[in-house]
Amino acid sequence: MYLADHTWPALQAELDAASTAIVPLGSTEQHGPHLPLATDHLIAEALATAAADETGIPRTPTVDIGVSPHHRQFPGTLWVDPPAFRQYVESVTRNLAYHGIDRVVYVNAHGGNVSHLREVGRRLHEDGTIYAVEWMWDESIPELVDELFEHNGPHAGPKETAMISHIAPELVDETAVSEARDGGLVDLEESDAVVHGARTYYDAIDNSANGAFGDPTDATAEKGERLFEAATEQLVHLLEWLEAREPEALRPEPRVE
Amino acid sequence: MYLADHTWPALQAELDAASTAIVPLGSTEQHGPHLPLATDHLIAEALATAAADETGIPRTPTVDIGVSPHHRQFPGTLWVDPPAFRQYVESVTRNLAYHGIDRVVYVNAHGGNVSHLREVGRRLHEDGTIYAVEWMWDESIPELVDELFEHNGPHAGPKETAMISHIAPELVDETAVSEARDGGLVDLEESDAVVHGARTYYDAIDNSANGAFGDPTDATAEKGERLFEAATEQLVHLLEWLEAREPEALRPEPRVE
Amino acid sequence: MYLADHTWPALQAELDAASTAIVPLGSTEQHGPHLPLATDHLIAEALATAAADETGIPRTPTVDIGVSPHHRQFPGTLWVDPPAFRQYVESVTRNLAYHGIDRVVYVNAHGGNVSHLREVGRRLHEDGTIYAVEWMWDESIPELVDELFEHNGPHAGPKETAMISHIAPELVDETAVSEARDGGLVDLEESDAVVHGARTYYDAIDNSANGAFGDPTDATAEKGERLFEAATEQLVHLLEWLEAREPEALRPEPRVE
Amino acid sequence: MYLADHTWPALQAELDAASTAIVPLGSTEQHGPHLPLATDHLIAEALATAAADETGIPRTPTVDIGVSPHHRQFPGTLWVDPPAFRQYVESVTRNLAYHGIDRVVYVNAHGGNVSHLREVGRRLHEDGTIYAVEWMWDESIPELVDELFEHNGPHAGPKETAMISHIAPELVDETAVSEARDGGLVDLEESDAVVHGARTYYDAIDNSANGAFGDPTDATAEKGERLFEAATEQLVHLLEWLEAREPEALRPEPRVE
Amino acid sequence: MYLADHTWPALQAELDAASTAIVPLGSTEQHGPHLPLATDHLIAEALATAAADETGIPRTPTVDIGVSPHHRQFPGTLWVDPPAFRQYVESVTRNLAYHGIDRVVYVNAHGGNVSHLREVGRRLHEDGTIYAVEWMWDESIPELVDELFEHNGPHAGPKETAMISHIAPELVDETAVSEARDGGLVDLEESDAVVHGARTYYDAIDNSANGAFGDPTDATAEKGERLFEAATEQLVHLLEWLEAREPEALRPEPRVE
Amino acid sequence: MYLADHTWPALQAELDAASTAIVPLGSTEQHGPHLPLATDHLIAEALATAAADETGIPRTPTVDIGVSPHHRQFPGTLWVDPPAFRQYVESVTRNLAYHGIDRVVYVNAHGGNVSHLREVGRRLHEDGTIYAVEWMWDESIPELVDELFEHNGPHAGPKETAMISHIAPELVDETAVSEARDGGLVDLEESDAVVHGARTYYDAIDNSANGAFGDPTDATAEKGERLFEAATEQLVHLLEWLEAREPEALRPEPRVE
Repeated sequence: MYLADHTWPALQAELDAASTAIVPLGSTEQHGPHLPLATDHLIAEALATAAADETGIPRTPTVDIGVSPHHRQFPGTLWVDPPAFRQYVESVTRNLAYHGIDRVVYVNAHGGNVSHLREVGRRLHEDGTIYAVEWMWDESIPELVDELFEHNGPHAGPKETAMISHIAPELVDETAVSEARDGGLVDLEESDAVVHGARTYYDAIDNSANGAFGDPTDATAEKGERLFEAATEQLVHLLEWLEAREPEALRPEPRVE
Repeated sequence: MYLADHTWPALQAELDAASTAIVPLGSTEQHGPHLPLATDHLIAEALATAAADETGIPRTPTVDIGVSPHHRQFPGTLWVDPPAFRQYVESVTRNLAYHGIDRVVYVNAHGGNVSHLREVGRRLHEDGTIYAVEWMWDESIPELVDELFEHNGPHAGPKETAMISHIAPELVDETAVSEARDGGLVDLEESDAVVHGARTYYDAIDNSANGAFGDPTDATAEKGERLFEAATEQLVHLLEWLEAREPEALRPEPRVE
Repeated sequence: MYLADHTWPALQAELDAASTAIVPLGSTEQHGPHLPLATDHLIAEALATAAADETGIPRTPTVDIGVSPHHRQFPGTLWVDPPAFRQYVESVTRNLAYHGIDRVVYVNAHGGNVSHLREVGRRLHEDGTIYAVEWMWDESIPELVDELFEHNGPHAGPKETAMISHIAPELVDETAVSEARDGGLVDLEESDAVVHGARTYYDAIDNSANGAFGDPTDATAEKGERLFEAATEQLVHLLEWLEAREPEALRPEPRVE
Repeated sequence: MYLADHTWPALQAELDAASTAIVPLGSTEQHGPHLPLATDHLIAEALATAAADETGIPRTPTVDIGVSPHHRQFPGTLWVDPPAFRQYVESVTRNLAYHGIDRVVYVNAHGGNVSHLREVGRRLHEDGTIYAVEWMWDESIPELVDELFEHNGPHAGPKETAMISHIAPELVDETAVSEARDGGLVDLEESDAVVHGARTYYDAIDNSANGAFGDPTDATAEKGERLFEAATEQLVHLLEWLEAREPEALRPEPRVE
Repeated sequence: MYLADHTWPALQAELDAASTAIVPLGSTEQHGPHLPLATDHLIAEALATAAADETGIPRTPTVDIGVSPHHRQFPGTLWVDPPAFRQYVESVTRNLAYHGIDRVVYVNAHGGNVSHLREVGRRLHEDGTIYAVEWMWDESIPELVDELFEHNGPHAGPKETAMISHIAPELVDETAVSEARDGGLVDLEESDAVVHGARTYYDAIDNSANGAFGDPTDATAEKGERLFEAATEQLVHLLEWLEAREPEALRPEPRVE
Repeated sequence: MYLADHTWPALQAELDAASTAIVPLGSTEQHGPHLPLATDHLIAEALATAAADETGIPRTPTVDIGVSPHHRQFPGTLWVDPPAFRQYVESVTRNLAYHGIDRVVYVNAHGGNVSHLREVGRRLHEDGTIYAVEWMWDESIPELVDELFEHNGPHAGPKETAMISHIAPELVDETAVSEARDGGLVDLEESDAVVHGARTYYDAIDNSANGAFGDPTDATAEKGERLFEAATEQLVHLLEWLEAREPEALRPEPRVE
């Protein structure tokens, strides 16, 4: 159920019956020479929509721009400073609590958002406002991801290429997929990204000249469909698990006395 | 040109040639018993898209959630606290400056965002980052709006009903349009919204029991189309006017010496 | 009753009996070549004093410096950044709640303060601290203003000239009144302040070379007196209306259930 | 020269010639049973006015409300939270730098403002904006204060009583002066304000039941006049000393190399 | 070289010759029933000291309290809110830049600090202040850690037990080591910490009743010594690598043009 | 009892029985040519340790870096901006309240921290979190300090030299003690630090070329021992006095009604 498509009287009954809401979040940032800047927010929105449809749980509009300063050198990348991003998400989540929601899943498709969603989630959890968890699609199906692709770069690699080939194939520049591999970084371990245990880079461009990681030539729309369905299934299970919990199980443990 | 649909190499040439960008902003808030919560951000996005297509000027993703605490009593309304909204918009606008853009039009369809966009725009103007102006569609065509409708409420009235009937007719609950009029506030002057010169209300519900203002029974998709085309034309003219200005004309005047 | 002129034991009884307080706010900013920088805060203080005397309601000291960055190019203009202004006013208003006041009228004479006072008032209203409304003198008597003057500029025009001629005639530079008209902007509609619906200026100097708007040659002390008395009467009525309200009528409406 | 009483063209020449400005600051807080809440800001304004008149140096409006939470238990006391106060003062001081002023004297009459003015002054000094110093009248004439009064309480005692008897005698409640002494704390050393080296109190009421300190029965308008003249003389000397300094002498020392 | 043990003239020559500094950071938080709260900051300080001694690079005092709200339920745990932690570390790092240092290693022994140190490091890197990298000892020697212990909990497990047995054996409660294993969580995969890809916990107590993770009965002081020496060696190499870099290699890449 | 040296089960009983905690705070800043940068935090930690041992009251780790921008010109000085320092200390103090502590003594050895600790203490006192008082060792034994030394500079003078000679004699550069006197400022009254009542300096270097104040040649380890023991005794008395107070005596007084 997509909250923004309805009138408030239509939402009233839905929200009265609901305890959970879905908030999709992505980014608008370079994804190599072959994928659109929208990649992450398209994935988040598509998964959130599928799970909302299947479960009837309300979902909010997607936060399209996330914490992406590490991709800024590539033309068109947009980003929000971490404090602004955290406050924006916190504000929206508090709204849901006002409307009676007491649990939220952040359906996230951008690694750069993770620690910030955890920080916001903790704040809201500790002050008793709401219980929100961050969920990232590829972390819910690690075996399948490994099975399908040989070189899984963390960004603009085969798993994202497959997903967009499935969700929005018209936005993939097929002519640039080999170039993505050849001009990017196929294998993270070949880079000097970590020196004696320290991550010495701050930006994607430090490791990949064209912003792509992994080998996306491996990706197909069919693989994308398998990923999409498997991840949606995990998300639906997570939502069901969350809805089944007792409210008191969502609150912080008391101090050990 | 919608920035997020393209790869970064495709954007590179576009942005090198561009001096202006369009940032659409709306809200996700109650719009009476007959219009969807998405009303404002749908309008902003549709106008921004039309103008971006016509001019080739890049537009960013839409900021879907705005400053709407005054509608919160109606189920489903989402809002962002003013400081968070201002920081979020400021952050995104600074990105555009990093990419070489020096002028921005905030295509806005929500009255509650106006003063905040002006505050952000001023800050960016004063520190020399970028020149951003706020544009609200109905303020660009006041005569046409007055000509088409008898009772123009500021919110969820005939002008927004006509626009959504044109842009996304499937989201209008036609069965509730009369109810919107009968249970809302048709004429602002009949309310006690202003007492001896002071606005004594803070929330929409203080003046309208169902959140609607004006008489939307007057609205049709055809009128919506006229509004849409007239406003798009104004927006295109504004963009052309802006692009034609010299960079130094965009900077603050110096102190009078 | 001016709070600062009394000892605390004298105030104790007054405050115990009071539910309402008056907070005057203005600016210290250029008002054309003929009016003093103090114009706005003099007007706010004079009106607040008159209404406090007539009603016995306590008034606080005047906030003399407001949100005036848009006048900064003219020598001597002082201003406070919006976040600082909001916090300052919020702080002072919370004090009044501590002393048992549950309603406040911001007697404001500077347009640049309005949206900020509304933002502070909303915050205090929503968290249940106090009910504060913003009141601007000329908005309480629009018919009289229109009746008295032909070209009512929004700033440093005939209405403010008349008011200062009544309140503090020694501060009006009579020799510069024609110059105010001739070197300023008599009719806003002649300016290009609004382009295709967008306000394209940020500073007063963008529209008026000497900072004046309207035609102040029309102003007299007698007209000032009429304005002053009419506005005071409106303010007194507002205060009486406010005092007569039940405390529960001052609180936000609950969510629609 | 009082900046707010003039038009901007009149100020232009004044400010072009000026390097220094005076900013008076006080408080609106209880001053025992016999003195008005305005005490501190009246004193600051009177001294600033006298020195501005004598030297021709521009002075700004007075900041009437300061950092006074420690007096809040007494009816009518107003206060500003420290961060808001610091930002407000910083904002106003930056204005003066915009207008070409490079040195400021904060003419302060409230002890609770001191550390905050120093913090703001340091920030502005370190970033090269302006050189601002805090000056408190009684610290400029310690010998005279000691000579005139036997029990000099730090607040609402004889020195402030004398000053207000001189500046605004109609605001002193003469009938309550003995009561101020008898119900207050005459001698700080008799209190348990400091325990084994720690200040264990946070509020004035912890040490004085009526908010007065010292023995104000000792005060007369004549003594007030002597204090006023002596302090004004010191302030004038300070301003002259400041104006005589080379701009580079106002900047922070470089790091020791 | 420990900066705080020296006089400023002694430091002058050292700092003039230095480009790099070491800032140790840890936490003060529960470490199961057998390890002291100081565990993390003791480890960070010991490693920093060893590397500073070996290389002559200056190190600052240790930040003893970190971002540990997730351990708060256990008595004595101290923590700093993320924004305060980030500002504190940023402030200290800026000092080092003032003294001519242009590269910093955060020698960190607490996982909860990582994302915050990265956020601060990025901010300082982007504004050109300094190049700071976060280094966590166990991530520099993953093979050795795996070789030495069977059940490596992330917190209060064998690796930390071994380290403290080497660094400060008197602070290990040997009688509680088996209890740490038996009442804690030996194997993270046995927990329900991750549900369908989402981390559903916020606090250590959600997964471990006594705060310990892994099997610390495996730990010895000898193993601790091996860890300590191996990690110190990595840290020294990192410092040498960092010192050898050209200053321009430390700056952010420019935008792709 | 040093909190960080214990396991959480060991702390549980201690904290259950405790109402008071000790938080030591100092600085890392130049202390003339003869004393280490650690001077203030070493003194605070030593006194806190002695008092914690004698009373059994828990003490936290020491805050080693304080508010010292006024010493920054001397190589190696570290400092934290005032807002960051206040937030850091507030965060740590709130932790103690979570663990059941309702009173705190800030054992402080750096004058630059005082006003900030008072500001934090007030905030926590007013919102009912905890009652925290600031204690500075030399202010608890003013007579003894005066008796032992002729020229007591406020910083890096004989009292601190004596204390470090007692606590950490190996860190005193005996060869530089005369130089400290000769190249520093022996007598504050000889400086032009205060001009007509205004402190016109912001930095230590404005008054002392080598950062030392007073005559440290007068100091001996024996005098240091006397100071240390006398101050410890005062601190123990303060802690006992604090522990003996009723909880309600720690709360703010209500408003005078």
